[in-house]
Amino acid sequence: MKKNLGPVNGLYPSLTTIVGTVVNGKPNFLAIAHVGIFNHGTPQYLSFGINKAHYSNQGIIEHKEFSVNIPSEALVVETDYVGLVSGKNTDKSAVFELHYGSLAHAPLIVACPVVMECRLHSTLDFTSHDVFVGEIVATHVAPEVLTAEGKIDFTLVKPLLFDMQGVRYLALGPEVGKCWNVGKTMKKAGGRP
Amino acid sequence: MKKNLGPVNGLYPSLTTIVGTVVNGKPNFLAIAHVGIFNHGTPQYLSFGINKAHYSNQGIIEHKEFSVNIPSEALVVETDYVGLVSGKNTDKSAVFELHYGSLAHAPLIVACPVVMECRLHSTLDFTSHDVFVGEIVATHVAPEVLTAEGKIDFTLVKPLLFDMQGVRYLALGPEVGKCWNVGKTMKKAGGRP
Repeated sequence: MKKNLGPVNGLYPSLTTIVGTVVNGKPNFLAIAHVGIFNHGTPQYLSFGINKAHYSNQGIIEHKEFSVNIPSEALVVETDYVGLVSGKNTDKSAVFELHYGSLAHAPLIVACPVVMECRLHSTLDFTSHDVFVGEIVATHVAPEVLTAEGKIDFTLVKPLLFDMQGVRYLALGPEVGKCWNVGKTMKKAGGRP
Repeated sequence: MKKNLGPVNGLYPSLTTIVGTVVNGKPNFLAIAHVGIFNHGTPQYLSFGINKAHYSNQGIIEHKEFSVNIPSEALVVETDYVGLVSGKNTDKSAVFELHYGSLAHAPLIVACPVVMECRLHSTLDFTSHDVFVGEIVATHVAPEVLTAEGKIDFTLVKPLLFDMQGVRYLALGPEVGKCWNVGKTMKKAGGRP
């Protein structure tokens, strides 16, 4: 018999990202572990809701551009740090070495093996939160985390998986099975496991 | 030097869920690994975008209710199966043993250690996709995955982490560090790692 915890968010772990913006002329970074995927296809949209009190929001609203960077385990301290302090009173522009793609206001983190440049598509007003919907313009990937076929190998990325219930970052584990594959025997058996 | 892969979605791994609906009077299930978190707070909102061609959409639109179930590794075959076959031509109502909370059209999966009942808040039209925004009404959790403090221990849940690039499910690994904690030394050091 399950226990009813009330309307708590049980959607963990979630991928930890660092969103990069330019605010008041300087790069700024915020750890966000709640970036959602809106669709499959082109354009590819993502979204994240952040409290309107955050410093990053004004940079996104002003420039309509931002980056989404995927830190590896090796960056756990820096990632946690940019989630602990606000750009309102702390200059975070020198925390990471940066590079840029085609968007001038989407600072990309050199040390993150996967980084995405995004253009703002729309902003949804969710009372306390701005929900930003962005279009991925380009994804830049370190060659050492690419497979021979040019796909991203996330076991090599070693992302930080956020667990809000345990207030911790968790590692990624090994493969359990192949998608759209391990269920095929059940399909052949007419839905019996 | 990173490689530009174009606008590919690099937001993996993502949590694999099974969304439950009632369509044409019968429970139906669809594996969805792209459920986003819209905010932190109460009400707690989540969202997922699914292609309008999916069978589940009509159930959500009709009843304005659905469930989000978190399968464990032990359910990898069943989870993959409900992502392989469509409710349009396959009755998936008997795949799982079910229970219900307060919502009549949010079928909950007994074997999933964490299940959420959701009420539809709004639907965003994203050309090929419906983006459903739901409010979590209640989260039911198996006692064997709860800590002594009543929090969900996701290392006991053993969720399936979806990797679209590797077309596979990955396991959750061990703890890397504590959130809002491991960055404190850097904060004390004025931003130096």
